[in-house]
Amino acid sequence: MTTDVRAAHADPAPYRALAHAPQDRHIDVIDQRALPHEIVSLRIADAETAARAIRDMAIRGAPLIGAVGAYGLALALDHDASDAALARAHSALDATRPTAVNLRWALDRVRDRIVGLAAPMRAAAAWTEADAIAAEDVAINHAIGKHALAILRDIAQHRGGPVRVMTHCNAGALATCGWGTATAPIFLAHAEGMPVHVWVSETRPRLQGASLTAWELAQRGVPHTLVVDGAAGLLMARGEVDVVFVGADRVARNGDVCNKIGTYDKALAARDNGVPFYAAVPSPTIDWRASDGAGIPIEVRAADEILTVTGRDEHGRTTRVTIAPPSTPALNYAFDVTPARLVTGIVTERGVAQATHAALAALQGDRTAP
Amino acid sequence: MTTDVRAAHADPAPYRALAHAPQDRHIDVIDQRALPHEIVSLRIADAETAARAIRDMAIRGAPLIGAVGAYGLALALDHDASDAALARAHSALDATRPTAVNLRWALDRVRDRIVGLAAPMRAAAAWTEADAIAAEDVAINHAIGKHALAILRDIAQHRGGPVRVMTHCNAGALATCGWGTATAPIFLAHAEGMPVHVWVSETRPRLQGASLTAWELAQRGVPHTLVVDGAAGLLMARGEVDVVFVGADRVARNGDVCNKIGTYDKALAARDNGVPFYAAVPSPTIDWRASDGAGIPIEVRAADEILTVTGRDEHGRTTRVTIAPPSTPALNYAFDVTPARLVTGIVTERGVAQATHAALAALQGDRTAP
Repeated sequence: MTTDVRAAHADPAPYRALAHAPQDRHIDVIDQRALPHEIVSLRIADAETAARAIRDMAIRGAPLIGAVGAYGLALALDHDASDAALARAHSALDATRPTAVNLRWALDRVRDRIVGLAAPMRAAAAWTEADAIAAEDVAINHAIGKHALAILRDIAQHRGGPVRVMTHCNAGALATCGWGTATAPIFLAHAEGMPVHVWVSETRPRLQGASLTAWELAQRGVPHTLVVDGAAGLLMARGEVDVVFVGADRVARNGDVCNKIGTYDKALAARDNGVPFYAAVPSPTIDWRASDGAGIPIEVRAADEILTVTGRDEHGRTTRVTIAPPSTPALNYAFDVTPARLVTGIVTERGVAQATHAALAALQGDRTAP
Repeated sequence: MTTDVRAAHADPAPYRALAHAPQDRHIDVIDQRALPHEIVSLRIADAETAARAIRDMAIRGAPLIGAVGAYGLALALDHDASDAALARAHSALDATRPTAVNLRWALDRVRDRIVGLAAPMRAAAAWTEADAIAAEDVAINHAIGKHALAILRDIAQHRGGPVRVMTHCNAGALATCGWGTATAPIFLAHAEGMPVHVWVSETRPRLQGASLTAWELAQRGVPHTLVVDGAAGLLMARGEVDVVFVGADRVARNGDVCNKIGTYDKALAARDNGVPFYAAVPSPTIDWRASDGAGIPIEVRAADEILTVTGRDEHGRTTRVTIAPPSTPALNYAFDVTPARLVTGIVTERGVAQATHAALAALQGDRTAP
């Protein structure tokens, strides 16, 4: 079984952020730090490597982090299936990234699935559960894409030219097990022949827009243009953006959206210019325990991510350059919170809901927390 | 005569963006493209070099562009003081950057000063006028600083800790003939012992915040922290910013502020969080012929400024790296327009005015256009 076994929803892209063949006790991921210049495959065959891949952002994106975390737990259980080892691995993997809720959700799901089993049964069950999480993610994203596609079709009906979507960071297939979240409707629209154009926000400091989203769009032949993060307001004021789609690392139950730093600024620009702003998320991204965004921990990453930029030099070598004076202090909040009042809707695999507790709860049915 | 001859207002900084000694028929500027890694002096001894320095952004910043443009005209007249040569040089220099209005203002001022003179008198008069423009700029910025300092003092009275100022791009001494515009109150506050802390927005694509503003603040010992442009919203939402000061390339007579791309996004974040937002500008930056921001031409610069980043590699070499896939399309609007409704006030050398035509006209007195 591979992660795209649910063939009806299979992402036809020629690349996979995560691959697992049924006979294997390892997974292969694309080391996203080498993109867009090189496609480097990274084999993950133990839980420590899984944790490091998440922490060092060889892989990133809330849904993908969740799936890799699940496989990491399976790898840990291959080695030691005791309760103590399970708790240790769960805790170590959970500590790698604090903001995305999918990681905790996936780890809990694997643990809850296997904790009642005898130790010798646990590893195999964990692998099966991790495979299910990965396969479901593909299907979920396809469903998100279908729901959000209706939004794009509606815009297309009222426009002569291409539908102009702005996105931020990478909520693409590289952030998931397939299709992506914010990109799924774009890929589906492009596949059905709808003219679309994507404004790719470069997303400092790590430039996931420039290095990952632009790469994915090019791979799939979707027209796009790279802009700096600060250009969102001007582009919207000029009427050059029809809709904003972003992913999220966590959505509070009141509809506050925690996503890559800079998302809130885009939502403000969208509101000021009457541009609809949607977050596209698998339902595991909704944290029913978080009453609002204020309770979500905002990860602070290394200052070096701001002070240096990695790219390819004129000789084709991957090179890191320093852009500020020596010993400049920098503060690197990795995420921000977009208040629900600025969010037109939350798209999940179940449909589109207003960004309110009532609407999210109604959409998700019995999955809601009190 | 040097540009800081009006000693009462002299900027004590150890660096000068522009220097002219009275006996010389050339000027020396800092080539700002080499900062913060190297201080490279560039001698400008003919009008073509002046035009190229402006166009290629060896020097930048609306007030500095104006002064260098004025000297460029003087240099042209040294060579040929005919009416035809004057018109040609005026036009060539004016075409170098479309958005900043100070350039046109300074060129017109020199032309108007000398056009009635006999050809043999023109060059010397042009040099004198250019010197006056440069010296006045220092005094103007000092006065801007004094007016805006009152705003900082008012905040300091209500706060325990340092006054936390956010700025964008570089509206520092490097953008002017001394003091800077947005930075003048910060330097004056720091000099009088007020604790201040500056959030430096890095300002993609050219990173003038990281490379120039951080450098200036370090040179002067002012505490500061570098952040990515997209962090403005989060920092303000967390209550970590007391006031925003930016410069401007042009202010329309209704108070719309045209400034470096990303300024509008910051103003939106400020408004959403109740943070006051000021533009600090010499009065020549006010374009009385522009009824609002919609009439201001927005310069589009080369896509390469987005697709590549220049910095210093681990061997200390200045290196340019590519951050996106080959042939990624990029669109590089260099400026945006912040609507007057988002601007708390415009600070000029004459005081602080609301961002309305009536208030600006009252502040400027007889300088107003119809």
